[in-house]
Formats: sequence, structure tokens, C-alpha cells
Amino acid sequence: MKPGASSLRVRLPVFVFAVEVVILGLFATFVAYDDHGDARFQTNETKAMDNAVYKDYPFFADIQVMIFLGFGCLLAFFRLYGFGGMVFNFLVATFSIQWAILVQGYFQFSHDGKIQLGVINLINAEFACAVVLISFGAVLGKTSPLQLLVMALLEVPVFAVTEWAVLKYLKINDAGGSILIHLFACYFGLAVTFVLYRPRLNEGHAKETTSYQSDILCMMGTLFLWVFWPSFNSALTLKGDDQHRAILHTFIGLCASTLTAFALSALLNKNGKLSMADIQNVTLAGGVTVGASVDMMISPAAAYALGMVGCIACMLGYKYLSPVLAQRFRIQDQCGIHNLHGLTGLISSAAGIYAIMVAKEEVYGPSMYDTFRHRAPKEGDPKLLELQALIPGLQPGLGRSAREQALFQVAAIFSTIAAAAIGGVLTGIVLKIPYLSSPSDDLCFDDKLYFVVPQDSYSPLKQNKDTHKEETVA
Amino acid sequence: MKPGASSLRVRLPVFVFAVEVVILGLFATFVAYDDHGDARFQTNETKAMDNAVYKDYPFFADIQVMIFLGFGCLLAFFRLYGFGGMVFNFLVATFSIQWAILVQGYFQFSHDGKIQLGVINLINAEFACAVVLISFGAVLGKTSPLQLLVMALLEVPVFAVTEWAVLKYLKINDAGGSILIHLFACYFGLAVTFVLYRPRLNEGHAKETTSYQSDILCMMGTLFLWVFWPSFNSALTLKGDDQHRAILHTFIGLCASTLTAFALSALLNKNGKLSMADIQNVTLAGGVTVGASVDMMISPAAAYALGMVGCIACMLGYKYLSPVLAQRFRIQDQCGIHNLHGLTGLISSAAGIYAIMVAKEEVYGPSMYDTFRHRAPKEGDPKLLELQALIPGLQPGLGRSAREQALFQVAAIFSTIAAAAIGGVLTGIVLKIPYLSSPSDDLCFDDKLYFVVPQDSYSPLKQNKDTHKEETVA
Amino acid sequence: MKPGASSLRVRLPVFVFAVEVVILGLFATFVAYDDHGDARFQTNETKAMDNAVYKDYPFFADIQVMIFLGFGCLLAFFRLYGFGGMVFNFLVATFSIQWAILVQGYFQFSHDGKIQLGVINLINAEFACAVVLISFGAVLGKTSPLQLLVMALLEVPVFAVTEWAVLKYLKINDAGGSILIHLFACYFGLAVTFVLYRPRLNEGHAKETTSYQSDILCMMGTLFLWVFWPSFNSALTLKGDDQHRAILHTFIGLCASTLTAFALSALLNKNGKLSMADIQNVTLAGGVTVGASVDMMISPAAAYALGMVGCIACMLGYKYLSPVLAQRFRIQDQCGIHNLHGLTGLISSAAGIYAIMVAKEEVYGPSMYDTFRHRAPKEGDPKLLELQALIPGLQPGLGRSAREQALFQVAAIFSTIAAAAIGGVLTGIVLKIPYLSSPSDDLCFDDKLYFVVPQDSYSPLKQNKDTHKEETVA
Repeated sequence: MKPGASSLRVRLPVFVFAVEVVILGLFATFVAYDDHGDARFQTNETKAMDNAVYKDYPFFADIQVMIFLGFGCLLAFFRLYGFGGMVFNFLVATFSIQWAILVQGYFQFSHDGKIQLGVINLINAEFACAVVLISFGAVLGKTSPLQLLVMALLEVPVFAVTEWAVLKYLKINDAGGSILIHLFACYFGLAVTFVLYRPRLNEGHAKETTSYQSDILCMMGTLFLWVFWPSFNSALTLKGDDQHRAILHTFIGLCASTLTAFALSALLNKNGKLSMADIQNVTLAGGVTVGASVDMMISPAAAYALGMVGCIACMLGYKYLSPVLAQRFRIQDQCGIHNLHGLTGLISSAAGIYAIMVAKEEVYGPSMYDTFRHRAPKEGDPKLLELQALIPGLQPGLGRSAREQALFQVAAIFSTIAAAAIGGVLTGIVLKIPYLSSPSDDLCFDDKLYFVVPQDSYSPLKQNKDTHKEETVA
Repeated sequence: MKPGASSLRVRLPVFVFAVEVVILGLFATFVAYDDHGDARFQTNETKAMDNAVYKDYPFFADIQVMIFLGFGCLLAFFRLYGFGGMVFNFLVATFSIQWAILVQGYFQFSHDGKIQLGVINLINAEFACAVVLISFGAVLGKTSPLQLLVMALLEVPVFAVTEWAVLKYLKINDAGGSILIHLFACYFGLAVTFVLYRPRLNEGHAKETTSYQSDILCMMGTLFLWVFWPSFNSALTLKGDDQHRAILHTFIGLCASTLTAFALSALLNKNGKLSMADIQNVTLAGGVTVGASVDMMISPAAAYALGMVGCIACMLGYKYLSPVLAQRFRIQDQCGIHNLHGLTGLISSAAGIYAIMVAKEEVYGPSMYDTFRHRAPKEGDPKLLELQALIPGLQPGLGRSAREQALFQVAAIFSTIAAAAIGGVLTGIVLKIPYLSSPSDDLCFDDKLYFVVPQDSYSPLKQNKDTHKEETVA
Repeated sequence: MKPGASSLRVRLPVFVFAVEVVILGLFATFVAYDDHGDARFQTNETKAMDNAVYKDYPFFADIQVMIFLGFGCLLAFFRLYGFGGMVFNFLVATFSIQWAILVQGYFQFSHDGKIQLGVINLINAEFACAVVLISFGAVLGKTSPLQLLVMALLEVPVFAVTEWAVLKYLKINDAGGSILIHLFACYFGLAVTFVLYRPRLNEGHAKETTSYQSDILCMMGTLFLWVFWPSFNSALTLKGDDQHRAILHTFIGLCASTLTAFALSALLNKNGKLSMADIQNVTLAGGVTVGASVDMMISPAAAYALGMVGCIACMLGYKYLSPVLAQRFRIQDQCGIHNLHGLTGLISSAAGIYAIMVAKEEVYGPSMYDTFRHRAPKEGDPKLLELQALIPGLQPGLGRSAREQALFQVAAIFSTIAAAAIGGVLTGIVLKIPYLSSPSDDLCFDDKLYFVVPQDSYSPLKQNKDTHKEETVA
């Protein structure tokens, strides 16, 4: 009996075609081009090079590499689950994006009953997709592709509603997505894996290991993410100096966390040897940690310090917290997303709040009310006109004080985590439906279940008898 | 006796140096900088940031990744022919590009007896190079590097003449190159492999297989192509909303075809298992299928539907048509280019014609005559002045009706296929010259013939005795 | 006794944290945002899209890929030292960049006691980082991570001072960095490896070999470098036609050197077989060779010829010079940086001088004094006003003649090489301090010393007894 294998032959196509028909219908009914994509809006005053596509597409292209090659390689670190990691990432990503175009579009980009489509929506949809892929990290190797698609089907709307509600009602600053992307994705994923708890995996699993080649592949994924992370963190900031700072801070934060990760890996591993798992994951912590304050005038030194602190928290999480979560709290977090996205996301959010509290006009100049736009004076306030003379195009805000803005950030953190956790638990329960062909414990982390695997000698379990024994015992 | 190996020691350098001397001479005599690259044309009205390089280079850079890393990894899928796939791709690509700069430049970019060189020519040359690389897919592993260089030497001019004649005399819409790139490349390649038919390969070849690592590498190639395909399809559209739509449609088409490919792979393979070959190739079908109408107002839903339809055709081609072509029609299409470029190219062309037929000013606004520029009124037509008031810079066209434009598209399809097929057959005949060191059947798909291969245990044929036996028998 | 392994447990963290505290302090004290990153400088005349980040960031992103994925994969070519090559590259690169931001910033970007930080500094810092990584190539596999960090700690300041002095006092043209990057890096690295001479390595080392997979990985590194090299060579040119030409020349030079490299590899290797080491390295020679004249009006044909000549010199260097340097001159140049950066750098510098000597206003127009800005007339010269009418914004220069400029280039070449060699020797002496845990000869080129290596069958030395014997004997 091979659960999950032959059964997918019908179930996967049925699900996919049903979903595709629905998506196609929704696209046909609701999706139109935005002003920058619609030929009708080209007038004799339109300058082709002013089209928004030229501002957004370079960032989109970088994020594409992160999503498909970065995450794809990063998740391919198991020695026998390289196809699964890389290819299910591809499947889940493409599905999540098309689904997010619709769901996010409905909540955030619809006018006159039509979703206005432009490259900017694709960037937003790839952020929603990043959320699903981060959550995927918690259940990597333990879920069928059908389960993953169902997870994406449910997570995208929960995320889109949360994002919409937080942006519309709480109105927060979160340029790098520390709250909405990293914290949401982390606690959603942890809740799913909590529900899908597999006691036997806590005893160790012979296939839950890497190989030399899979470690190198995973490292390439890290490097793709590292290299383009400044684009990720800055894609949705205001244009100009805000985006410039976001790039600088992300880069500095990553440099600091990378250097720190090497030191901690040597310090905490046996014999001072470096562990590839540390290098693959912990080096990236700085990118998350600078996220919530990435466009603010926090100073380059603060970005550096955030990179170091985030890295230390992330590393200690891997070493000491993850085992406890798995053994005591039934949270088997396969890729350690709680360390790389949860702990760092919390630190980032706290730093963002601090940066909001200390923001002053002496440091930002009048453009402070651009960066913190809810702090801009309300319509009718004489201060608004004064500021608009200095910063043309400044929109009226809510006249929030720093303290008020900070409280809304706190509210956003708690409500995002709560929504994620509840959504994750419910999703986990749905994923337990037997129809979704969850793999048996033995066949976790193994491509053979879902793929035609080449009959070659590269598969270590077949080839090397001695290694095999060790592994099944381990 | 090792045909192709030691003989290359003299023949390859002789060919390369002869060709290089000719190319150098042609460069020295005919190639000059275009207005955006020539220092003399910098006047007191020139703004540095208006230089065309800033419009073209980002797209060029993306296409670079597709050509060298995308195709390079994609073609490295044979377990023992990874060097050949990746490295001959590199060789053929660099040669094709430099040759195309000259040949295409002569036909399309020469003024006053000089080829005007700018980054825009490099983009065009990389498209010509993509044509050669697609054709290369049909004969992968069965040709010596010298044969490949000769193929490029002949294919580039046949392509350049066809492209020039179609653009100059038939004047078609084909932003994504479905006709000129994909159909040409496909039927040229099929014609070559038809002439180079090797009956013994139809019985199966021990080395015509993948390994775990080569499948992963190939998958990375797919992802590079997938990620940057929007840049490929939009690089030569009009700037502004046309380019914006091209990016959106390509992305949506790819998302749809990727999801569909997973469903079909599970449906059509034994036990519902996914085949990496399907994921590596069929997921990309959507990028081709949207090509011919990629810049038009076809609606996002149509792009989605095109992605699905193209994917289905491509998948059925792999499963049912390719074996028939090989067994009955002597067409051994190594990478299945007929499925990924031929069938999808035909669907794309048909969709393009349909989109042309239904194009209306209500949908496009007056800029319809920008997108379909041959439909713009002729010089002297009063309607032209009227339109030019709305769309400044609109060029006079040919006053074609939708129906006329559609007929020219049909003519372009047939003449492109005919030129490709004839050129391919003639090229194939040239490639049979024994001097070109074609590999023997036994040494097909094997790096050992052309490379110093590291003496390591990774080569499965050496290491694993059992596998070895199976393979030499098979 | 395992030198370098357990000892790193304390030494690496101590070094890293000490350095981080210093860097953090320096960032806090001296680093501020430049005008394009500082919110205060946003006025009612600031246009967000005019921010320098949009001119610099696309080039920066390309260079990021080259540094981390290009160099990372290229240096991972040893079969048992893939982690070391890729991961120490990552470590050294991130450390060098943060250190260069400070040191280069102090010399070149400080105003009013503050280093003005923008993306342009990051590009400059990545160039300093490229210098360290090239030098690293000479000692790859023979140095501990601690030694590498110390090398970077010393090389960055020596480089930054040399760069500053050459630019400030000699005022040279060197857009592609042939002198300041390639020659400096090469002779610094050779001097270091000269001091670290290991006689036993000249007898051959069992682990100094590649595997099939490591060769493919390295090839990917080559392709990343190849694809983005035009961005590297053009990142710091003047905007507009100068940058356009830099892109064109680099691309043409690389095409020529790639084709030549294949011919020479077949010609010079046994049986006409291609060597992957040649393809991985020599194909890139053209990118270096065009460097010094990359923005000048040298003509596309000259770029082509430079690519060929550079490639020939580089290939002959690998075949005939490198063994002599190792055997006779105690210079064990692990990656052959003398061929790819030294010989080609010298040719490039010579070509640059020639291009300067023949530069004429007929060819360049008045913008000649932009490209060669030290040749612009001095302040007060009536010719300056005349030229400024034609080229607004032209800065007064030094009124140098072509010959004078050429002499300063020569002076720059010699002083750069001298500074590099002296700095390299001194650095090498420091690296011999036993505290830095240099690996023993036996454990060179072996990841086991510094990494927790997966217990898998991929490691050929364990698995395949026969191969093992051959290797230990060899």
C-alpha cells in the first residue's frame, strides 16, 4: 500500500482542474488592466517611460529569483527530497501567486468591481506567496502536494484578509513585512505543524539528513536570497530616499548577521567546526530583523546592530529552542522558521516600534510625514498646508502621535499572530482529511513517493550498505 | 579509433580561428557605434540618462541569464552529458551572438554601410542565439562541437534573412517571437535531426538517462527561464503599456501552464508519480503560447487560458507525438522541441491572429495604431492627422484592415516554417560531412568523448557494476 | 592533533566579535546617509525618481550576483572543498564589504567628518571585496577562515590607500579596474602565496582534484560572472554613452575570448579533448582585457581583438607559466589568478595607454574631455568655456596632453603593483602566525577540517577504495 502515490493520480488533477476553472472564471469576470497596462489610458500626455512598470519591474524580477530559485534551492536540502523541496516550492509558489492576485486584488486593488492588474499586484502576490512558502518550511517533507495546495488555498485568503484589515484599520508601518509577512507566515506554519504532529519523527528519521550536494544546493538558495533581499525589503517602500535607505539597511543588516553567524557556528558546534545548516539559515536573519524599520532614519549603525542581535537570537533558537518546541510542545518545525522568521520578526517589530517612538522632525525633516504617513496632520489642519508647501503631494493623515502609532503597531503584532495561529490550526485540521493523501512516517522526506526517481547510483540509501544501516538505526 | 575526439584537436581550432579572423575583419570594416554609444553624438542637449542603454540593458541582462544559465542548465539533463549540455550551449551561444551581430546587423541595423551597434542589437542577437539553442535541443548529445558551430554558422543567416524578409515585406505582429523564434527554431531543428537520423537510437541508448543531480540541475535551468521569461517576451515590444501587458501576460500564462503541468504529469504517469522531465519542460509552455499576442489587449483571462491550452498540447505532444515522430518519421527530437516550441508556437500564432481579428478601437483606444502599426492610416489619410493629435509620434502605416493583417500573419507562419525546414535540411546535409567528426552511436550522450572527465566515483557507469551491465546490454 | 579545527572554536568568535564591536563603533561614530539617502534632504524640488539609487542599484544587484554566486561557485571546484570554496567566499566577501565601507569611505567619501553612505559606496565596497576574493584565489584551500579574515582585514586598507592615492595624485583612466582591481589583487595574492609557500604541495596533493559535480558547479560560477561582467566593467563609468560603450566592449570581448578558449583548449590538451578548467577560467579573460579602455572609443573590433589576445595570453599562462611559477619561484597560484587577472590586466593596461595616446577630438567630439577628464582645460583656459558651451557641466581638468596622461597610467601600473606586492608580502608574514591555525598540508583542500560534513556516500575518498589508492599515490 503506498498512500499518497497512486492516489494522487486522480486527486491532484481533479483538484487542480477544479481550481483552474474557478480561477479562470474569476479572472474573466473580475480582472482588468490597471491604468498603466490598459491601452485606452494612453493619451497625448502619456510618456511611455513614466509607466509604473519601469519602477516596479526591476524589483519584481529580483523577487522572482528569490521565490523560485532562492526558496527552491533552500528547501532542497534533504538528501533524498531534493525534487520535493525544489519542485513543490515551484508548484506552491505558482498556485499561491495566481490565487493571491485574485484574493488580494479583491481586498486591496479593486475599483468599480474590477481588480486592477499591474506589476505592482504581482509584487504583492509574490509577497503573499512568500508567506505560504515560509509556512511550507515548517511542514517540509511531511505533506503531500495536494495538502500543500490546500494549505495555500486556505492560507492566502487568511493572509489577505489579515493584511487588508491591518492596513485599513490599524494602519501600520511595516515596509519589510516583519509583522505581516514573517510573523504571520511563522505562526501560521507552526500552528499547521502543531496539528499535523507526528510523534515518531521525534525519535529521528533515517532520511532527515543532508548530503554534500544537497548542502551545496541549499547554500546556493541562501545566496540567491541574500543577494536580492534588499530588493525584497524595499520593493514596497516609498520611492526615493526611503527606498534607498531600505536597500542600505538590509544590506548592512545582512552583512552583520552573516559574520556573526560564522562566529556563533564555530562557537556552538563540536570541535569548532562550522555547520552548513547554520550558514544556510542564520546568515539571513539580518534581512528579517531590519524589516519593520527598514525605511526609517534608524542610522546605518542601528541596522548593523539589528543584524547582529537578530542573528544571535536566531542561532540560539536553532540550538536550544527548536528541540524543546518539538519534544515538549509538539511543534516539529522542519526548517526552523520560528528562528529565522518568528524570533527575528519579533525583534524587528520591537525595533520598529522603538524607531517610531524616537522619530523626530529634526532627523527626518518634513518628509517624516511621508514615511510615517498616518502621523501627517488631518485634512483641515493648518500644519498640513505648511507641510505641503515643503513636501508637495503630501497626503493628509490621521494626526497620530508617535505613541499612538506605536500602540497600533503593537495591536497589529498581536492580531496578526492571533489570526495566523487560528488560521493555521484550522488549516491543519483540514489537512488531516485522509483524502489529501498525507505520506506515512516512513515515506517522509523521500522523493520516491511522488516522483519517478532516476535509477542511478547517486541515491545513497540504495548504494552504500553501511551508511544505510547507520541511518535506519539512527 | 575514437571519432570526434583526437580529430577535433586540429579541426576545431582551425574552424574557430578562421571564423574569428573573418569576424574580426567584418567588425573592423562594418561595425560602428549607434547614436547612443558614439561619443561624437553627445551634444549640449543630450541627457545622459536618456541614453537607450537604460531602457534596453535591464532586459538584456535578464535574457543573458536565460541564454547562459537557463538554457545551459536545462540542456545538462543527461547524466553523463552534463558538461556537453552546459558547455556546448556556452560555445554555441557566444558564437551565434557574435555572428548574429554581423548578419542581423547587415540586414536590419545598417546605415551608410555601417552596422550601428547598441545594446538593442545585442538583444536581437541573443534572440537569434535563442533560435540556434532551441534547434540545438533536437540534436543534443548526437553532434560534435564542430557540427554545432557549423549549424550555427548556417542557421544564423537563414534566420536573419527570414526575419528580415518577414518583417520588411509581410510586416507582422509577433512581439514574443512565436513565429520567428519558436516556429523557425523548431522546424529548423527538426529538419536537421531528420537528416541526421540514427536508426539505432530508436532502440534505446544506455546513456540517454538522467541522474538525480542532473535532474536538479536541469530544473534550475527551467526556473531561470521561467523567472525571466517575462523579460524575454517583452524586450522588443513598444515601451509603456505594451511592455507592461507583455510582462503581465507572460507571467500569467506561465503560472497557468505550471499548475496544469503538475496535474497532467500526475494524471499521465504510472502510479500518479510526477516526472521531472514534465516539470522541466511542460511548465514553460505558457511562455511560448502567449507570445504572439503578448502585447495586445487580450485580457488577463485569455493569457491564463492560453497558458492552460499550450500546456495541454505540449504535454500530449511529449507523451504521444514524440515517440511517433521518432519511430515513424525519423525525427528524433532529443529535447522535445516540437512540443515546447512547435505545437505551442502554432497555438500562439493562431491566438495572435484571433487577437488581431477582434482588435477594436473601443478596447485599445487610439493607441491601437501604435500596437498594430501597419493598421495605422497611410501618409496623407486625414484620419492619420486626427490620430496624431491623440497619439503624438504615431507613424503612418499601411492602412491594413484586421483581416489583411491576419492574412499576412498566416503568410508569415507558412513562409517561416518553409524557410526553416528547407534551411534545416540543407544544414543537416552539410553536417553529415565526415570532416565534422560526428560521434558514433555508442558515444552519443557521453562527455568522455570531448572532455577530460574527472576520474571520480560519481560516474555511475564505472562505479556500480550492476547498473553498468544493464546499461551496456540495453 | 587537528590543527585549525578545534582551535577555531574560540579564536574565530573572538576575532569576529572584536572586529564587529570596532566596526559597530565606527559605523555609529562616522557613518551617515548621503544626500540621496537622508530624509532631511528631500525638498519640494526633489523628484523621487531622480534619486541616485535608481542609477546605481541595478548595477549593484548584478555585481551582488557576481560576488556571491559567481565567485562562490567558481571557487567551489575542488571535489572535497566545495563548502570551503563557496562558504569562505561568502564569509570573506561580507567581511570585506563592511570593512571597505569604512576604510574606503574614510578615504573617498567623507565630508565634515562623516562617511556619506549610499548605494554607490556599496558598489565601491564590492569592488574592494572583489580584490580580496581574487587574491583569495591564490591561496584557496590552504588557509584557515581566520587567516582569510586577517588577510581581508589587511588587504582592504592597503587597497583603499592605493586606490585613493592613485586616483587623487595620479588621476588615471581605469573604468574596468584593470589596474586598481585586477593587477592589485593579482600581485597581492601572489605575494601572499609566495610567503605561504608549501614545498610538499609541489609534489601533488591527492585532494587537489575536481569531481563531475564540482566542475559543473564551478562552470555555473563562470556563467554568472560572464553574464554580468558588462555590469561590473560599466558600473563606475560616466552615465550615458560611456556606460553604453563599456557594456558593448565587455560583451564583445567576452564573446571573443570564449570562442578562442574553446579552440585553444582543444589544441593544447591531449587528444583534442576540452578541459573544464580552461572553459571555467580562460573564457573570462576578455572581460579583464577590455577593462582599462572599456569606456573609450576603441571600436568594437578592438574589443574583439583584445578578447582574443587576452584569452591567448591567459591560456598560455595556465599551460606554461603557472607550473614554472610554482616549481621555480615558490608561487603556488591555486586558481591561476596570475593568468586570468595578471597577464590580462597588463595587456589591458597597455591597451588603455594606447587608446589614450590615439584619442582625438575627431573621434570623441568635445565629450572627449568628459571621458578623459584630466585632459580637460584648466580653470581659466578660454578653451574651457568654449567646450562648456558644447558640453554643459564639463569640469575643469588639468590640461594634460595624451602623452602626459599615458605616463601617469604607467606610473599607476608600477606603483599599484609595488604596493600590492609589498602589502602582500607583509600580509603573508602576518598569516604565518601560528595562532591563525593554518591547516596542515594533508588537510588542505578538505572540508572535513572546518565543516561538519554529511556522512554520505558522495565523498569519493571514503567510498571508492580503488580511486582512493590512486589518489593517495598520485
